[in-house]
Amino acid sequence: MASEIIEPLERLADMFRRLDGVGKKSAMRYAYAVLNFSNEDAAAFAEAILAAKTEIHLCEECQNITTDHICGLCASEKRDHSVICVVEDPRAVTAIEKTKQFGGVYHVLHGTVSPSKGITPDKLKIRELLERLKDDSVTEVILATNPTVEGEATAMYIARLLTPLGIMVSRIANGVPVGGDLEYADEVTLRRAMEGRYPLG
Amino acid sequence: MASEIIEPLERLADMFRRLDGVGKKSAMRYAYAVLNFSNEDAAAFAEAILAAKTEIHLCEECQNITTDHICGLCASEKRDHSVICVVEDPRAVTAIEKTKQFGGVYHVLHGTVSPSKGITPDKLKIRELLERLKDDSVTEVILATNPTVEGEATAMYIARLLTPLGIMVSRIANGVPVGGDLEYADEVTLRRAMEGRYPLG
Repeated sequence: MASEIIEPLERLADMFRRLDGVGKKSAMRYAYAVLNFSNEDAAAFAEAILAAKTEIHLCEECQNITTDHICGLCASEKRDHSVICVVEDPRAVTAIEKTKQFGGVYHVLHGTVSPSKGITPDKLKIRELLERLKDDSVTEVILATNPTVEGEATAMYIARLLTPLGIMVSRIANGVPVGGDLEYADEVTLRRAMEGRYPLG
Repeated sequence: MASEIIEPLERLADMFRRLDGVGKKSAMRYAYAVLNFSNEDAAAFAEAILAAKTEIHLCEECQNITTDHICGLCASEKRDHSVICVVEDPRAVTAIEKTKQFGGVYHVLHGTVSPSKGITPDKLKIRELLERLKDDSVTEVILATNPTVEGEATAMYIARLLTPLGIMVSRIANGVPVGGDLEYADEVTLRRAMEGRYPLG
């Protein structure tokens, strides 16, 4: 008899493998770590998974995740509701909020257009974005999808939809990251940084 | 109002952070990944955690994890029960079994002696090892704890306990890993490889 397969352990490792970026070895390491949890902690972990799924919804307005019907940002009177920043996912909202530079509201697409993966525009929250623009209260839309092939294509697609509506549409700038080294910047980034140069003094 | 804290998401990320080697960013990435699970998958994940904790026990003989009272290796008549290989954790058993070179049985310590972390010998499964040696059926104990400071200290500690019992005690060899390059081997490993040299031809 060879080393035995411990089915509950394999099953737990399989679930960990479904998480973004978790390989076979890490999944097994996490499964072993759970075995070392107290019974209370294991119960709390299981409960946290179920709670996250049942208590978190999409904001009816911006489609960001929230535990309410309308998220805190959309409900806030301190935010400028005439400027919408369009992002791919909730993590981008968190990243931009950390800069404390943006005072508008957001719209979360939950993905990018990617025909090769079967993600057509109707699978994203684009219809919901157009709905928000209907009452003419929004004057500017900033397209802040990631600077990837899919992110750029999605920004272009949405820009083409919005231009006829007479709304100002902008795209976040590409350039050399602050604190970075030109030597390590890729050519495309560097070219964009040169193109986007601005006068000093 | 700043970006809102979504309590169920934070709670789930906190649980992921308790796993070995999971940092803040990865924990949040995993929590988001769970949000994208179907309800059925999330329920299966929660159930797998609880099942792993309730269905997996320690083998009464070797202290390895198993779903039975006695693990498959200890229950097997094809294994040589007179040779015990002592390891730190269940993963070491899996690693050695993969080599298909060892026909004996194991003993899992579940840790190493580490006074700085408060892990004294009585916290390990050393008492259970001594119990197995009482009936004189075991003739050799191979100490296969990891070649770390704690692993070496634990091996030395157990060796001192076993030598008076007249049992053959050995330690796995240190040396240059097969397929490795001498240039990248650390000095201690290289010194051990030289010391452990064996005659050819």
